[in-house]
Amino acid sequence: MADFPVTEHTRVRRLAARGRYDRETIYRILDEALVCHAGFVQDGQPAVIPTLFARVANEVILHGAPASRLLRHVAAGHPVCITVTLVDGLVLARSAFHHSINYRSVVLFGRGRLIEAETEKLRALEALTEHILPGRWGDARRPTPRELEATSVVAVSIDGASAKVRTGPPVDDDEDYALPVWAGVLPLRQQALQPVPDPRLADGTALPDYLARYVAGER
Amino acid sequence: MADFPVTEHTRVRRLAARGRYDRETIYRILDEALVCHAGFVQDGQPAVIPTLFARVANEVILHGAPASRLLRHVAAGHPVCITVTLVDGLVLARSAFHHSINYRSVVLFGRGRLIEAETEKLRALEALTEHILPGRWGDARRPTPRELEATSVVAVSIDGASAKVRTGPPVDDDEDYALPVWAGVLPLRQQALQPVPDPRLADGTALPDYLARYVAGER
Repeated sequence: MADFPVTEHTRVRRLAARGRYDRETIYRILDEALVCHAGFVQDGQPAVIPTLFARVANEVILHGAPASRLLRHVAAGHPVCITVTLVDGLVLARSAFHHSINYRSVVLFGRGRLIEAETEKLRALEALTEHILPGRWGDARRPTPRELEATSVVAVSIDGASAKVRTGPPVDDDEDYALPVWAGVLPLRQQALQPVPDPRLADGTALPDYLARYVAGER
Repeated sequence: MADFPVTEHTRVRRLAARGRYDRETIYRILDEALVCHAGFVQDGQPAVIPTLFARVANEVILHGAPASRLLRHVAAGHPVCITVTLVDGLVLARSAFHHSINYRSVVLFGRGRLIEAETEKLRALEALTEHILPGRWGDARRPTPRELEATSVVAVSIDGASAKVRTGPPVDDDEDYALPVWAGVLPLRQQALQPVPDPRLADGTALPDYLARYVAGER
């Protein structure tokens, strides 16, 4: 897969060594993140909205109520910036100055379109549901025509994107390594706890395998 | 504490019942989140940048290199939108349509200012360091005058803000409750693993108590 071109918009300027432009890195970060932050401009004001998403090929799918400001904005083809961030750990340096976090983030720019054809809309909703929990679409009740009408689905083409990745131990100034200050990384990870069944769950409904696998971390 | 006023900008429109405007809820979400997503407008284009932050009174502190586009933008007093999101779980409904996540998010609007006075700048950096890990500022080497100069610190006043909170089990359509589809919540939580000491840690440097407490979840 070809890299995304490095443009005025997407070039990582601060700590440029952390910048990545290859599609594989960018797609993998997008696919691992549950939530994205979508930024748009309305009357000259910035707005940033957290929302579920899914990547399909080189597009990001968003959905919501047809009256949503974000979705109307994206459906109208206005520019949008979508950012996802995975936090991997606290980076504890000897000096306050060199404190950081280990993270993987993607910033992408694109314009959207409304998905109207029913087949494509269903495929997009399948991707959104499978992004929440792989295996879920085959189990859940599919959308009715009325539900499809009540849902707005948009696709944002990834026109430009960059990733930024920090890994590894802190980097301190040479003269600080002798200081008696504990330094290192505290790894952080999003962890699934035990599933909590709906109080109204129909008797005898077993926990599905795909959910058990997700809880066990085998995704 | 008085609530934030509900304005055209901050009113939660989609699923309005999830909207919260009281400072306690908003401040608590901000204080728990490690990373924020800061949105700004440059040449009419939206940009969303993930960054560390800290709340001090009714301001959000950001820092970085003086050449950072985000920081120069905020320091110039342009409008910024800062969003934080805490993901609490997957909400697995019987119908694909009612799938969701449990989450707590804050969207705030404000304008920034550059913090120039050394005392205030140090206090802001203390807040940033303590936000990463409470107790760390008392342990780490403090910034030198050269490091202070190499760091740009800005404060964004929280002029308007709203929180959005979803908790609890899925809400399905009445006729779906009898379906033999497993439904419920999969709780998710950010978990600290075991600290990884820097390979160059000075001999005999013990793990600090505040870090052990953080790992044990007692924060």
